Amino acid sequence: MDSILDLLQSISTALTTLEKSKCRGMILTSDNPSVFSAGLDILEMYKPDPTRVKDFWTTLQDTWIKLYTTSFPTVAVINGHSPAGGCLLALSCEYRIIVGPKNTIGLNETKLGIIAPRWFQDSMRNVIGERQAELALTTGKMFTADEALKVNLVDEVVASKDEATGRAIAFLSQFAKIPPLPRKMTKLEFREATVNWLVNNKEKDLQIFLSYINQPKVQEGLGMYLESLKKKSAK
Amino acid sequence: MDSILDLLQSISTALTTLEKSKCRGMILTSDNPSVFSAGLDILEMYKPDPTRVKDFWTTLQDTWIKLYTTSFPTVAVINGHSPAGGCLLALSCEYRIIVGPKNTIGLNETKLGIIAPRWFQDSMRNVIGERQAELALTTGKMFTADEALKVNLVDEVVASKDEATGRAIAFLSQFAKIPPLPRKMTKLEFREATVNWLVNNKEKDLQIFLSYINQPKVQEGLGMYLESLKKKSAK
Amino acid sequence: MDSILDLLQSISTALTTLEKSKCRGMILTSDNPSVFSAGLDILEMYKPDPTRVKDFWTTLQDTWIKLYTTSFPTVAVINGHSPAGGCLLALSCEYRIIVGPKNTIGLNETKLGIIAPRWFQDSMRNVIGERQAELALTTGKMFTADEALKVNLVDEVVASKDEATGRAIAFLSQFAKIPPLPRKMTKLEFREATVNWLVNNKEKDLQIFLSYINQPKVQEGLGMYLESLKKKSAK
Repeated sequence: MDSILDLLQSISTALTTLEKSKCRGMILTSDNPSVFSAGLDILEMYKPDPTRVKDFWTTLQDTWIKLYTTSFPTVAVINGHSPAGGCLLALSCEYRIIVGPKNTIGLNETKLGIIAPRWFQDSMRNVIGERQAELALTTGKMFTADEALKVNLVDEVVASKDEATGRAIAFLSQFAKIPPLPRKMTKLEFREATVNWLVNNKEKDLQIFLSYINQPKVQEGLGMYLESLKKKSAK
Repeated sequence: MDSILDLLQSISTALTTLEKSKCRGMILTSDNPSVFSAGLDILEMYKPDPTRVKDFWTTLQDTWIKLYTTSFPTVAVINGHSPAGGCLLALSCEYRIIVGPKNTIGLNETKLGIIAPRWFQDSMRNVIGERQAELALTTGKMFTADEALKVNLVDEVVASKDEATGRAIAFLSQFAKIPPLPRKMTKLEFREATVNWLVNNKEKDLQIFLSYINQPKVQEGLGMYLESLKKKSAK
Repeated sequence: MDSILDLLQSISTALTTLEKSKCRGMILTSDNPSVFSAGLDILEMYKPDPTRVKDFWTTLQDTWIKLYTTSFPTVAVINGHSPAGGCLLALSCEYRIIVGPKNTIGLNETKLGIIAPRWFQDSMRNVIGERQAELALTTGKMFTADEALKVNLVDEVVASKDEATGRAIAFLSQFAKIPPLPRKMTKLEFREATVNWLVNNKEKDLQIFLSYINQPKVQEGLGMYLESLKKKSAK
């Protein structure tokens, strides 16, 4: 399996390419049948190499900025568990379809002993509102597909990836007759305040992240979490 | 039929008169059985006379500012299709009752190749929340009565205009025992930030609107849309 | 019965003590079987002694600031009617469980001829959203348990105080495995903007309150309201 850094770099490059093309819509999904994208970012944070972890975080920042503000419509087809960074990417799309009933989604950072930074928080707040976002983030909640639908964290729950893809195409098809320019400008007006915070605070956000994860207690917590994952997968 | 400019001027004058009276409540509705108010603003934007279109937009700005901040409670009885400006006026009232099941409501600007300006966006965001507003505005969605109820774009769906009027009076009646001053001050505190943006940016907002609609491509799009409306009504 | 000022001072002292301890969770409830805490603040506002009313308001400000930003999780078990200040305290917790079906909850200030100040408004807006908060506050609505659940003003409706306590403990138990530091920091990031307004405007907020309630018309209204309460309880 490629590292999460490799994966983020691929997504970032793909977004730049699509932006230059006349792309009219994109489906973000995973070819891994059990995990939707960036769930294992934690491996990048445990006993990190200083250069690599910095590279990881700035790549995540840049990828998010691009994905959050694409000129073309975006749909996440969530066909596996989608914690942390995977949830962030899904939240950044314009529409979310999850393959139920077993897959889960959420920003579970507090459970790992870390903090979802402000742009993670805002991405979730913009989708499920202030109240549900505070509750989800303080409890580090992983939502089942049905729970996610109930608070509008996802827009649809379907039974298979094929069905999800069909629904995603249906969502994108409604833009066929809508002129791209006013659509894009409307989207950017909605997302401007959220994205500008990170654009204007990239270095500060990086320093907050680095100084937080480098605390001995946080490293210890991440170590214990990774240990518990190993035990689970050994069963 | 009077022009939309005439209609807006009538509403604006009526609001000023009511504000000076001891009005304790207002129902905004239409005597046209199929269209709720300002839906055809597009006629003012296509091949516009420079003086008249400026007059149209500033009148819409002024009417909205007055309606959004009336000291007395307001209810929209939506008894016909309510696109664009009609939806804006309904969103500016304190309560919305739609006569179902056939009437539709929404800010469909992107479908016409234009952009709902910031105060339109905020008016919708304040009613249905960030997530549903972004989805509605980027897709230019016209909601059926039931869809509108589901996202709280309207508060009630009823079967006839008479029933709607009865429900509107019931809504207004609950204010009979509430002192008008604290009620008004509470309303204005909620709406202050939204309305102040336009109050402080009227000229800028006008220039954005004028420069946008005067683009050849936008005019072409409006022309095609009007053509399609003619064909529909000829059937 | 102790005065509301005494009650607020007790809560404030308890919060300071808990903050210094290693408290991992708190349930806010009332041992009065019919009223949940601060509902009768109005007695402090009618024909007020200048020193005492100032003391009352600053104590309410300080108590709210502490409760809104506790480092440990908080649950309100609402086992009686919860108007005005009682509703504010419940809104400031992280989770709300009401004993139904008869108890009611709401910010009914406009009905008393007074205005819920900005931090009351924000506390409600952060829980039920802009639209429902405006409607609730302009109408001074007291929600039944079921109505409160429908707009998410409470998270659960249960049949008895015992059941409510059990559910509150279940809510708090989910934090057993969550490290307190990232949890607290996540909560504070969500609540920072709301609480900072009052922290930075305590004196201004006090002056607005004092000058408002000292108006003869407002005093007259409060007098009439207290008279009507007496008649009710005499029945």
